Amino acid sequence: MTPVRLQQLLERVARGEVSVDQAAEDLRDLPFADLGFAMVDHHRALRQGVSEVILGQGKTAQQIAAIAAELAKAGHNMLVTRIDADAAAEVQKALPESRYHALARTLTLEVAEIPALAPDAVALVSAGTSDLPVAEECAETMRMLGIRHERLFDVGVAGIHRLLHRREVIDRARLAIVVAGMEGALASVVGGLVDVPVIAVPTSVGYGAAFEGLAALLGMLTSCASGVTVVNIDNGFGAAFAAARILRGKK
Amino acid sequence: MTPVRLQQLLERVARGEVSVDQAAEDLRDLPFADLGFAMVDHHRALRQGVSEVILGQGKTAQQIAAIAAELAKAGHNMLVTRIDADAAAEVQKALPESRYHALARTLTLEVAEIPALAPDAVALVSAGTSDLPVAEECAETMRMLGIRHERLFDVGVAGIHRLLHRREVIDRARLAIVVAGMEGALASVVGGLVDVPVIAVPTSVGYGAAFEGLAALLGMLTSCASGVTVVNIDNGFGAAFAAARILRGKK
Amino acid sequence: MTPVRLQQLLERVARGEVSVDQAAEDLRDLPFADLGFAMVDHHRALRQGVSEVILGQGKTAQQIAAIAAELAKAGHNMLVTRIDADAAAEVQKALPESRYHALARTLTLEVAEIPALAPDAVALVSAGTSDLPVAEECAETMRMLGIRHERLFDVGVAGIHRLLHRREVIDRARLAIVVAGMEGALASVVGGLVDVPVIAVPTSVGYGAAFEGLAALLGMLTSCASGVTVVNIDNGFGAAFAAARILRGKK
Amino acid sequence: MTPVRLQQLLERVARGEVSVDQAAEDLRDLPFADLGFAMVDHHRALRQGVSEVILGQGKTAQQIAAIAAELAKAGHNMLVTRIDADAAAEVQKALPESRYHALARTLTLEVAEIPALAPDAVALVSAGTSDLPVAEECAETMRMLGIRHERLFDVGVAGIHRLLHRREVIDRARLAIVVAGMEGALASVVGGLVDVPVIAVPTSVGYGAAFEGLAALLGMLTSCASGVTVVNIDNGFGAAFAAARILRGKK
Amino acid sequence: MTPVRLQQLLERVARGEVSVDQAAEDLRDLPFADLGFAMVDHHRALRQGVSEVILGQGKTAQQIAAIAAELAKAGHNMLVTRIDADAAAEVQKALPESRYHALARTLTLEVAEIPALAPDAVALVSAGTSDLPVAEECAETMRMLGIRHERLFDVGVAGIHRLLHRREVIDRARLAIVVAGMEGALASVVGGLVDVPVIAVPTSVGYGAAFEGLAALLGMLTSCASGVTVVNIDNGFGAAFAAARILRGKK
Amino acid sequence: MTPVRLQQLLERVARGEVSVDQAAEDLRDLPFADLGFAMVDHHRALRQGVSEVILGQGKTAQQIAAIAAELAKAGHNMLVTRIDADAAAEVQKALPESRYHALARTLTLEVAEIPALAPDAVALVSAGTSDLPVAEECAETMRMLGIRHERLFDVGVAGIHRLLHRREVIDRARLAIVVAGMEGALASVVGGLVDVPVIAVPTSVGYGAAFEGLAALLGMLTSCASGVTVVNIDNGFGAAFAAARILRGKK
Amino acid sequence: MTPVRLQQLLERVARGEVSVDQAAEDLRDLPFADLGFAMVDHHRALRQGVSEVILGQGKTAQQIAAIAAELAKAGHNMLVTRIDADAAAEVQKALPESRYHALARTLTLEVAEIPALAPDAVALVSAGTSDLPVAEECAETMRMLGIRHERLFDVGVAGIHRLLHRREVIDRARLAIVVAGMEGALASVVGGLVDVPVIAVPTSVGYGAAFEGLAALLGMLTSCASGVTVVNIDNGFGAAFAAARILRGKK
Amino acid sequence: MTPVRLQQLLERVARGEVSVDQAAEDLRDLPFADLGFAMVDHHRALRQGVSEVILGQGKTAQQIAAIAAELAKAGHNMLVTRIDADAAAEVQKALPESRYHALARTLTLEVAEIPALAPDAVALVSAGTSDLPVAEECAETMRMLGIRHERLFDVGVAGIHRLLHRREVIDRARLAIVVAGMEGALASVVGGLVDVPVIAVPTSVGYGAAFEGLAALLGMLTSCASGVTVVNIDNGFGAAFAAARILRGKK
Repeated sequence: MTPVRLQQLLERVARGEVSVDQAAEDLRDLPFADLGFAMVDHHRALRQGVSEVILGQGKTAQQIAAIAAELAKAGHNMLVTRIDADAAAEVQKALPESRYHALARTLTLEVAEIPALAPDAVALVSAGTSDLPVAEECAETMRMLGIRHERLFDVGVAGIHRLLHRREVIDRARLAIVVAGMEGALASVVGGLVDVPVIAVPTSVGYGAAFEGLAALLGMLTSCASGVTVVNIDNGFGAAFAAARILRGKK
Repeated sequence: MTPVRLQQLLERVARGEVSVDQAAEDLRDLPFADLGFAMVDHHRALRQGVSEVILGQGKTAQQIAAIAAELAKAGHNMLVTRIDADAAAEVQKALPESRYHALARTLTLEVAEIPALAPDAVALVSAGTSDLPVAEECAETMRMLGIRHERLFDVGVAGIHRLLHRREVIDRARLAIVVAGMEGALASVVGGLVDVPVIAVPTSVGYGAAFEGLAALLGMLTSCASGVTVVNIDNGFGAAFAAARILRGKK
Repeated sequence: MTPVRLQQLLERVARGEVSVDQAAEDLRDLPFADLGFAMVDHHRALRQGVSEVILGQGKTAQQIAAIAAELAKAGHNMLVTRIDADAAAEVQKALPESRYHALARTLTLEVAEIPALAPDAVALVSAGTSDLPVAEECAETMRMLGIRHERLFDVGVAGIHRLLHRREVIDRARLAIVVAGMEGALASVVGGLVDVPVIAVPTSVGYGAAFEGLAALLGMLTSCASGVTVVNIDNGFGAAFAAARILRGKK
Repeated sequence: MTPVRLQQLLERVARGEVSVDQAAEDLRDLPFADLGFAMVDHHRALRQGVSEVILGQGKTAQQIAAIAAELAKAGHNMLVTRIDADAAAEVQKALPESRYHALARTLTLEVAEIPALAPDAVALVSAGTSDLPVAEECAETMRMLGIRHERLFDVGVAGIHRLLHRREVIDRARLAIVVAGMEGALASVVGGLVDVPVIAVPTSVGYGAAFEGLAALLGMLTSCASGVTVVNIDNGFGAAFAAARILRGKK
Repeated sequence: MTPVRLQQLLERVARGEVSVDQAAEDLRDLPFADLGFAMVDHHRALRQGVSEVILGQGKTAQQIAAIAAELAKAGHNMLVTRIDADAAAEVQKALPESRYHALARTLTLEVAEIPALAPDAVALVSAGTSDLPVAEECAETMRMLGIRHERLFDVGVAGIHRLLHRREVIDRARLAIVVAGMEGALASVVGGLVDVPVIAVPTSVGYGAAFEGLAALLGMLTSCASGVTVVNIDNGFGAAFAAARILRGKK
Repeated sequence: MTPVRLQQLLERVARGEVSVDQAAEDLRDLPFADLGFAMVDHHRALRQGVSEVILGQGKTAQQIAAIAAELAKAGHNMLVTRIDADAAAEVQKALPESRYHALARTLTLEVAEIPALAPDAVALVSAGTSDLPVAEECAETMRMLGIRHERLFDVGVAGIHRLLHRREVIDRARLAIVVAGMEGALASVVGGLVDVPVIAVPTSVGYGAAFEGLAALLGMLTSCASGVTVVNIDNGFGAAFAAARILRGKK
Repeated sequence: MTPVRLQQLLERVARGEVSVDQAAEDLRDLPFADLGFAMVDHHRALRQGVSEVILGQGKTAQQIAAIAAELAKAGHNMLVTRIDADAAAEVQKALPESRYHALARTLTLEVAEIPALAPDAVALVSAGTSDLPVAEECAETMRMLGIRHERLFDVGVAGIHRLLHRREVIDRARLAIVVAGMEGALASVVGGLVDVPVIAVPTSVGYGAAFEGLAALLGMLTSCASGVTVVNIDNGFGAAFAAARILRGKK
Repeated sequence: MTPVRLQQLLERVARGEVSVDQAAEDLRDLPFADLGFAMVDHHRALRQGVSEVILGQGKTAQQIAAIAAELAKAGHNMLVTRIDADAAAEVQKALPESRYHALARTLTLEVAEIPALAPDAVALVSAGTSDLPVAEECAETMRMLGIRHERLFDVGVAGIHRLLHRREVIDRARLAIVVAGMEGALASVVGGLVDVPVIAVPTSVGYGAAFEGLAALLGMLTSCASGVTVVNIDNGFGAAFAAARILRGKK
C-alpha cells in the first residue's frame, strides 16, 4: 500500500537510515498516484450522494450483471442507463429488487435512502410525447441524485400558449432542463422567459432533416436566448448530472 | 415568325396546296416552340405583373448593365437582386433613374405603375436586426410585385412577449413570411399562432454552429408547427415570389 | 375555471369589494392563459375542419390507441400518420371502424362528414413509383382535410414528355404538390410550368449520394424555379397541411 | 399607455359605467402585452445587473453607434461584442469614454459601478494562446456582469501536468469555464477533476479536420466527463452569461 | 387517339369546315404530347436493345411481380435490379423461367436473343472481393444490354503490380469501368494507364471514415487522372448504362 | 541511358560475355522504368493531340511562367486552366502570343494547328448565365483538344420549353456536356432526351443550400436518367477531357 | 511461365537466333509482371511473419470458409477480422482447430509458432469498457504478428489520475496504441506524456454527436499533442499493423 | 522553488523537527507539480534535439516576435510554422539571422548545430506541385529535428510509372511520408510497395468535391493498404514530428 510506503520512507529519513537527498530522489521517482491522494473518480459526485452509475450501452447483459452484482454487495444504490429490456431482465435475475423503467430505459437499485441534494426543484420541460424517453431518463437520474423536479410536458412552441399558461412551473424553478427534438425551439423560448440556468437536451425525435437530432442540437447551440447551455443528443442523464453540479454548490 | 408559319401551313391546307397527310407530317416535325405558344418563361409571373428580375450574383457589373439597359428600352420595370454597391453604381451610370437599396442589395427601376396583386397584406416578420438585409430583399421584391406588407421586426423568440404583444399584425395578414437566422425558431412559433400560409426564410445570421444558415434551415424544415414551408437560406426574393404565387390565385 | 375567476374579480370590483388598484394589480399577476382566451392549438386548422391528427412515430401502439380512443369519444374524425401495421392493428381492436392505409401508413377514422375546404383541386404530382408512400400520406391527409386532388404520378423528368403530355392536370390546379426523391428535379420543372403555389416534398427514395433524401432536399431548396417552397423530407402530411393553409384563405 | 387603459377600464367597472360582462369581453380582446406586464426582455439579467449588450456582428458601425448612443443617454453600462476595430473607432467618436478591447473584440462603456454578482470566482481555463480572443470575450462579459474570475491559461492536455500543477485554481472555483479549440479535450479533463459546473466553449482554433471548431464542439458534447455543458463555437459571451444564470441563484 | 385527332382537324381544315384561324387556335391549345410524337421514355435505349429495366428497391414483391408479368406478356427481355431474394422468389412464382443472381441482386428474363451492342469489350475492373456485388450488377446489366466484358478483379492499388501484371485487359478494352470502395484509388490509377473512357463506380465497401461510400465517391470525383467520370455509389447498373451510351455511338 | 544499357547487356549475351542466367538475373533487378518503355504520362492524350495542360491553381505566377516557357520552347500548344488575370499577365510577358480568356480563366498558346479529334460535335448545354465560366473552360479545353462543339446556353429547366425548343442541338450531337449549378436538374432532363453519352458538370453557382455546388453534385449523381456520368464541381476541363476519351475511340 | 519465357529469349540471343535489336524490342513489349519479379503483395509483412489475413466483413461465410481452407492447406497461420459468430461457426466446421474471439470478432488459426517481431512491448491503452472490442481486435492482431503488448484499460481522461497512476506502462513501452471513442481525448493526453510513437484509434463508441466515431476521429486528427497519427474508426487491426511497420524496422 | 521546499521538508524530518505523520500529511497536500518532477512539456522531444516550436497561426506578429525573442535569448534553435511573410518580416526585425521559407511558411533560427536524430533517411513523397508547401513544411521541420530525407516529388498515381520508376527512393527509406491532395491515392500505393511505416498527409489541394482536403483525408483513412497512419490535413509539421517519434526509438 502506497501511504504505507510513504510512511516507511519518511520513518527511515527520521531514523537517519535514508539521507535527505536520497529520499528526495526516491520521492521524485515515486509514481504519482502511489502517494495515495487525489485518485479522482469521475463518478464521485454521484457516489457521494447515493448511487453508482453504469452506462448500459455497449456492454453485454452479462457484463452489466457482473458489475451490478459487485456494486450491490457494497451496499451502494445503483443506476444503469441505456439498458434495454432484455439486458435488464438478465440483471434482475441476480438483483430481483432492482426496478426497470421501460420508457427511460433505466434500471435502478435503491438500498439506501437518497438524501435531497438541494431544497429547490428543477423544472423538467419537454416539447412532445416522443421526447418522453429522454425526459424520463433525466427524471430517473435526478431521482437517484436526490433532485426534486416538477414536470411541464408537451409544451412545444407550436402552441406557445400552452407553455405560457403554465409558466409558473419554470418561474419557480431553480433551474430548467428543456428536452426537445425536431427544431428544438423550446430551449430558446424558455431561455428567454427565465433568468435561471437552462440546460437544453436535443433529442433524436423527428425524421428527414432532423438528421437524428442534429437539427435540434444546432438550434439549441445557436439559440438566440443568451446563456443556454447544451448537452449531447438524447443525453437526459447528462442534463441531470449537470443540474447536480449546479445545485450542489461549492463544497 | 412562327405563328405566321403555322398560319401559312394551315392556309395551304385550306387551299388544298398541302395534303392533310403532309401537313400532319410537317406539324410533327415542327419544333415545338416554333408554334409560338407556351414559350414558358420562369419570370412570367413577375413580368405579367410589372417587373423583370435579374439575379445579380455571378454576373459582372457589365453584364448586368447590358441586360438592364436592354430591358429598360422595352419599358419594363426591373428588379436586380444580390447586386453589390459597385455593380449598382455601374448600372446606374446607364440607368440614372434606377434606385439602389444598400441593405437589400437590390436595384430597382420603375417606369410603369405597379398594380396591387391582392387586397390583403403580407406580414413580414423577422427575428433580429441582422436579418434585415434578407427581410429588405423580400420587401423590395414584394413592392415590385405589387404586394403590400406590414412589418414585425426584431421579435425573436427569446423575448416571446414582444411577438405576442404585436401579434395582431400576423393575425390580420393573409400570409406570413418569417425571416430568422440562428436557430430559426420564430417560424415555429408564428406557424402555431396563425392558420394562414407561413413561408420561412432561414438566414445565414449567426456564427459557429449556425453553419451559415444550416441550423436555421434544418430547424425550419423540422418545425413542430404543421404546414410551414421553407425557401433557401437568405432567399428573401424567393419568399416574396412564393407569396405572389399564393396571393395571385388561380387565373 | 379561469373565465369564472375573471368574472368574479370584475363583479367584486363592480360591487366595490375590490379597489380598482387592487384589481389592476391582481390582473397583472394573473397568469396569462388563466384568462381563458387564445389557448392556441397547433392542430386548430384540422380540428376546425374535421380531424384530429396524431403523429404515430415515436409513440407506442398502446399510447396511440389510448389517445385515439379518447378522441373517438369526442366524435372527432381522426388521422394517425406514420403508424406501422402492427400498431394500427392494435388501435383497430379498440376502434374497429378505423381504416388502415398500408402504403400511406395512415390510420383514419371518419365519424363525421368532411366538408370541402375549397372548390379547387390540388395537383398531386410524383416522380416515381417509390415515391408513392409519401404521395399517399399526402393524399390521405388532404382527404381528411376536405381537399380534392388530382393525381399525376410517375412523371419524373428523365421522361419529360410524360409530364408535358399531361400538363393540363397542373395547369388547371389551384396549387401543385410535387413529391420526388433522387435529385428532385421535378419541382423545378413544375415550378417553371405554372404560376400557382408549388409545394415540394423531397423523399428519401434513392441510394448512395441520395443520402436519405438530402440530395432531393438541397435540389428543391436551390430550385432555379422562383418561389417554390419546400417541406421536410418524406413529409407528405406537412405538404397537405400547407395546402390547407393556402386554400382555406383568410378567415 | 396600456396600464392606464387597464386602470380606466377598471374604474369604469367600479363606477358601473361598464358591466362586468362587457369588461370581461374587453379584457379578452385586449392584446396581451398591452396590459403592460411581463414584457420579457432577454437581456433582463444583464440589465438588472449593469449593462446593455449589443451583438456587433451583422450590424454596421453606424447602426451600432446609433444604438449605443441611445443607451448611453439612459445611463446604462454597455457591452458590445464581436465588434471590429473600425466599427469600434466609429462608435468611440460618439462615445469617447468607451473602451475597446482589441483581442476580445469588445467595446465597453461603464457609467455606473458594477456590483458583484456573487462572492465566488469563476475559473476561466483555456488551452492555448490562440484561444485567447474567446477567453477574453468571456472575461470582459463577466467583468460587465460583476463576476470575478481567475485565469488558468495555456494548460492544454498535451501537457497535462501544467494543468495539474495549478489545479488549485479550479479546485477553489464555484464553476469552471473551459475554452479550447482543436480537439477540445481540456473540458473532459477539467470535468473529471471538479464537481462544480463546467461550461465548455469550443473555439474555431485549428485547421484542417478542426473544421472551424466542429471537432472541438463534437468532442465537448461527447465528453466522457458527466454533466459538462456546452455553448456555441467561439461563444465566450454565452459562457459568461450562463455563468451568471448559475451564480445569480434563484431570486 | 391523338394523331387521329390531328388528322381529323386537318381534314376539316381541308374540307373548309374549320377556318385556318380556328385551327391555329385549336392547335395552340392542343396538349403537346397529344400530337403523338416524342413520347420520350428514359428506358428507350434498353428497350430498343433488348430489355425492360425495373428498379426493385422501394417496390414491394407484389408490385415487381405485377409489372414483370405484364412486361413478360409483351415478349420483352427483362432486368430487375436491387431485388432481394425473397422478392425474387415471389416474382419467380409467376415467371419461373426468370433467373436470380444472388450476388448481383438481379432478376433477369431472356425471351429473345440479345444482339451485341458493339464489337469491343469493356474492361470491368474491381478492387476487392467485397466490391463483387456491385461489379456483378454491372456485369448482368451489360449482358442484358449486349455488351461483352472482360474481368479484372481484386486488383486494388495496395498491390499495384497485380494490376500492372494484367494491364493488357484494360489496354485492349474500348472503355473501362472501375468498381472500388474504401478510398477508391483504383480509378485514378486506371485513368492514368489508358486513354479510353473510364467510368468510376464508388462502392459502399469499407467502414468508419468510408462513410458508406462517401470516401470513394469524393476520391473518384477529385481523381488526379483527367477525364474520369463517376456514377452514384454502388450504381453498377448506371455504369453499364453509361457504357451503352458510349458504345452505341450516334444513330 | 537505359535503352542503351539494355542494348549493351543483350550484346554481351550475344557475344557470350554474359551467360543467359546472369542476364536473366540482371534484368530481374533492372528497375522497371529504366527499360525506357511505358513511361506513362497522364497528359498523354492531350499531348498526342495538340497541347500541354497546366493546372494554374495552387501554382504561383512565376511557377506557371517557368513551366510555360519551357513547354513553349518544345513547340507544343499549351493550355493553362484556373489561372487568374494577374498570373496570366505575368506569363504573357514571357509568352506575348498567348491568349487569356477572362471568363474561362484559361491561357492558351497555339503554335501548331490543332487537328480535329472527331467529325461529330459535342452539345455544350448550360443552365444559366452564371454557369458560363465553367462552360467556357470546357469550351476552351475542347478547342485545344480539337473537339467541335455547339452551344445551348441558358436553358435551365425552370423554362423547360426553351430547352425543348432547341433540342435539335442535342439531338444531333455525338455526346452532350451539361453544365448546371443550383439543383443541377438539367442533366436529368437532357439525359432523358438523348441516348448519347451525357457528362454532367455541377457548378458552384447558387447560394445557401447550394453549398458551393454540393446540391448540384448530389442531384446529378442521383439523376433519375440512367447512365449520366458526373465530374467534379466546376470541372469544365475534366468534362472536355472525358469527351476526348469518348470521341477518340480505341486506338 | 514468364521467367521461362525470358530464359528462352535470352538463350535464343546467346545462340544468335534472335538479334540483339529484336530482343530489345521484344523485351520492350513484354508485359511488366511477366518478368516474374516484384509481384508485390500487400499482405507481405504479415505473411513473412506468420499469418494470412482475411477481412471477414463483406464476405459470406462460405467465401471465408473457402479461402481459409485453402490457406490452411498451405500451412500458414491465419487471422480473420470482422467476422461474426455465425460465419465463424461455419468456418470452424472446416477448420475445427481455429479459435473464435467473440469480443474481438476475430478467428485465428495457429499452425506454426509465431516468432517475436521485436523485443519491446506495445502499450495498448483504452478509454472505456465499450472500447474493448476494438482493443481486442488490435490485441489479437498483434498476437498473430508476434508483438507483445501490455494493457492499460479503462483510463479515460475524465479520471485523469487513473492514467497517471499507471503511466509506467506507457513510459516503458516502445510505442503506444490509444483506443478511445466519444471525444477521443485520451490520445492527446498520452501523446503529451511520452515521446514514443502514438497511434490513435477512434472508436464508434458513443451516441448522438459522437456520430459513429466522427467526434473521436476529428479530435484525434486535431490533437494538440504533436505527432500523433490516426487510423480509421474502429480499425484495431490497422493500428496493430502500423505498429508492426514501426517495430520491424528496416530490413 | 519546489525541489527546495521538498528538500527543506525532508531536512526537517531528518532533524526531527517535523514528525513523520506530519510530513506525510504535508506531502499529501503538496500540489503535485510543486515537487518539481515530471513537468511534462509536449515540445520536449524537439527541445531535447534542437528547437523550440511556435505555431504561428492564430498569433499576431507581435506575439510571435515576443516569444521568439525570448527563446532566442536562451540559445535555443527555433521553428515557427504557419507564419506568413508579413509576420515573418516583423520577427526578422528582432531576429535578423532568422530565415524565412516562403513556400513552407516557416521561420527558422539556428544558433546551435542540429545533431542527426537517426542514421536512416525518410522518403518524402508528394503527388503534385501544389502539394509542395505542405511537403516543404514537413521538410523544414525534419531539418530542424535532425532528420535526413530524400525527396520523391510529383509522382501522383495518375502516372503510376513515374513512381515505380523511382521506387528505390522509398525502398531504401526507413519510413515514408506521403503528401497528397485531391483523392490522396498515393498513400495507398506507397503503403502497398513498402513494409516500413507510412505516414500520410492529406492536403487541401483540389477544388469542388475535394472539400478542402476532406476527400484526401477520408481516402487515406480508408486506405486499402494496411497500417498506413494519417495526420491532419496540411499538417506537414505533424508528420515530421511523428517521424521523429519513430526514428528516435525508445530511450
